[in-house]
Amino acid sequence: MMSPDQRTMSARPLAHRSIWVKEERQTVVQIIDQRFLPHRFVVEDLKSVRDVASAIREMHLRGAPLIGVAAAFGMYFAARQARPKSWNEDVERSGEKLRQTRPTAVNLAWAVDKQLRATHKVQEVEKKIVTAFRTACQILDGEINVCKKIGEHGFKLIEAISRKKRGEPVNVLTHCNAGWLACVEWGTATSPIYQAFDKGIKLHVWVDETRPRSQGASLTAWEMAERKIPHTVIVDGASGHLMQKGLVDLVMVGTDRTTRGGDAANKIGTYMVALAAKDNKVPFYVALPSSSIDWEMDDGLKQIPIEERNPDEVTHVQGFCDGEIKKVRLIPEGSKALNYAFDVTPRHLITGLITERGISPASEEGLLQLFSPEDVNKHQIPFRSTASHDSDDF
Amino acid sequence: MMSPDQRTMSARPLAHRSIWVKEERQTVVQIIDQRFLPHRFVVEDLKSVRDVASAIREMHLRGAPLIGVAAAFGMYFAARQARPKSWNEDVERSGEKLRQTRPTAVNLAWAVDKQLRATHKVQEVEKKIVTAFRTACQILDGEINVCKKIGEHGFKLIEAISRKKRGEPVNVLTHCNAGWLACVEWGTATSPIYQAFDKGIKLHVWVDETRPRSQGASLTAWEMAERKIPHTVIVDGASGHLMQKGLVDLVMVGTDRTTRGGDAANKIGTYMVALAAKDNKVPFYVALPSSSIDWEMDDGLKQIPIEERNPDEVTHVQGFCDGEIKKVRLIPEGSKALNYAFDVTPRHLITGLITERGISPASEEGLLQLFSPEDVNKHQIPFRSTASHDSDDF
Repeated sequence: MMSPDQRTMSARPLAHRSIWVKEERQTVVQIIDQRFLPHRFVVEDLKSVRDVASAIREMHLRGAPLIGVAAAFGMYFAARQARPKSWNEDVERSGEKLRQTRPTAVNLAWAVDKQLRATHKVQEVEKKIVTAFRTACQILDGEINVCKKIGEHGFKLIEAISRKKRGEPVNVLTHCNAGWLACVEWGTATSPIYQAFDKGIKLHVWVDETRPRSQGASLTAWEMAERKIPHTVIVDGASGHLMQKGLVDLVMVGTDRTTRGGDAANKIGTYMVALAAKDNKVPFYVALPSSSIDWEMDDGLKQIPIEERNPDEVTHVQGFCDGEIKKVRLIPEGSKALNYAFDVTPRHLITGLITERGISPASEEGLLQLFSPEDVNKHQIPFRSTASHDSDDF
Repeated sequence: MMSPDQRTMSARPLAHRSIWVKEERQTVVQIIDQRFLPHRFVVEDLKSVRDVASAIREMHLRGAPLIGVAAAFGMYFAARQARPKSWNEDVERSGEKLRQTRPTAVNLAWAVDKQLRATHKVQEVEKKIVTAFRTACQILDGEINVCKKIGEHGFKLIEAISRKKRGEPVNVLTHCNAGWLACVEWGTATSPIYQAFDKGIKLHVWVDETRPRSQGASLTAWEMAERKIPHTVIVDGASGHLMQKGLVDLVMVGTDRTTRGGDAANKIGTYMVALAAKDNKVPFYVALPSSSIDWEMDDGLKQIPIEERNPDEVTHVQGFCDGEIKKVRLIPEGSKALNYAFDVTPRHLITGLITERGISPASEEGLLQLFSPEDVNKHQIPFRSTASHDSDDF
């Protein structure tokens, strides 16, 4: 059941993967410890459910899909480590521990439950372990395939603009990090970029730095630099000016949750990019796995809860200084800050939604041409109705 | 000729001034060394034209009006220091040195020229020195008065909203620093805020941090904290979300240059704030001294040159860490950044222009109701046609 990719995925420069099994003996899973990016590339070995739990808790990794995959491998380690006599209790206890590492991360809970259900179906401990490994690999493969397909559809948009510009570089702007560091491979909003670049289409990426956590400046820029894709980091306030000057051909962003009506929640600042795109007639696309469509919601502005995060992320900035990662304070001691993590871009500002099944208008009718809610619900990662989506999803 | 304010302006907590004469003997001018704000309050003595030149060159002070006033006092010191026998040559050489400290700062050159013309009209060296001091004080008074009047007009906007909200706090959003730290007293966009606050109107200020140089997070927040005005710092991407939620009643920003047609250049990001204001029906005002109206330009998007500054401002952030001011790097070594300092907000997004003569629609007809170009040209600080306005103006 192991895909060829998984067998070779320890070769990092080939892979551009955020998580992989180290060796055929399947005792070590490796991740990139993202806390040190973009300043240091650190690979971390995960050998136990405890290792996985602390990697999730301490945010060595982030991004909803990646957290889900890591948790699935965590459950595989739990299956190996459990005592045969009390296997069920041990594994369930491990699952609970994993869930507690990021209580609002829906993909995490979903992956843990999926593993519990899968292993429950077989009796022998040896088979349970094999099943757990297989299920983790399936979840990993699933994430990769969805992102790959998003890229295949989105690629056509870039290709069309490239043709229209007669091969002049296509300028794509993106906000935050919806790349493979948040997923497993390809990413969502970055997948069309990678596929276009791999096919030799000339392009250049404008990377919004994305305050407060600077995921654009640190993670997306690092991804682009890794693949040697021409790119330039700008401050979040600059995208409108670039569009006024005709320097942006296309905007592609990720999303944490999209309503069935086509409103998309994404990292704070996305709405203002969408406004600038509309004002300058620049196409604005949102890339998403269908698992992030919330079929129970229609009006995103009214219904999607927006998490308020720690104001320290606004008052301070983390960066590299004298060989160390340091945090500096920006604002005076007498001032306070507010930190909304997301905003909602209303459907009328969105040119289209790029999904694994194709590109649809940002509307219920559009989405229903590609999906039936029942069809999707089978694979969907359930949303929590009161808490917001995990804030580090993208 | 000294106004009562000037006599007492060494008392900093009373004054909220960026520059003042220390003592009646008139041998020392003091400024706030703004490089250390908001983390340390450092007052610097300026006692010679050399002190003034290095304070301007090393950016101890910034802001077009303030640079002009400092240069005027620099010329006063030059007048005192010049040798009586070669007074003209000495003072002209000093003027040239001052001009070279920030070659694109138009207020600086304007103030130097004004001093040269004024002192040229009298013969005796003693009288020249008195004239130079008087002229510097006049320039200082002029800047204060213009800002005060801007505040008187803008105050009415805040007052009207306060009445409509039955005394609930008025939420004003501002971008960058158009406060007294950039001017002498009151500031431009902040002047209505200060006057409303002083008159007991309840208000709260949303302060955009204003990447890349964080003038909002550091300087505007510090000004607000100094006066104990309720305020909250947000990242630049957040203002749109706040407006969607109905948390902003009014936007007021400064400008570096406004065309006669009503287009306004201001710190990068302003255009996107204006788009969000329009989309959410939030009034968007630009506060400006009439000296910053460029009567020779109509179409700001086509005609106003936009300066590209050092990308280091984007790649790095300066802040306070372990008792020191430090710079940290945000982006990977393999990435580059682009740093446009300003953008242009087109007139159709601007509700009104707040000037020292009143509030006008953002249009030529509107401005001509308050000013005749000839009338204004007398006092206008000339624009350079090819270089952009000094980038540290606001």
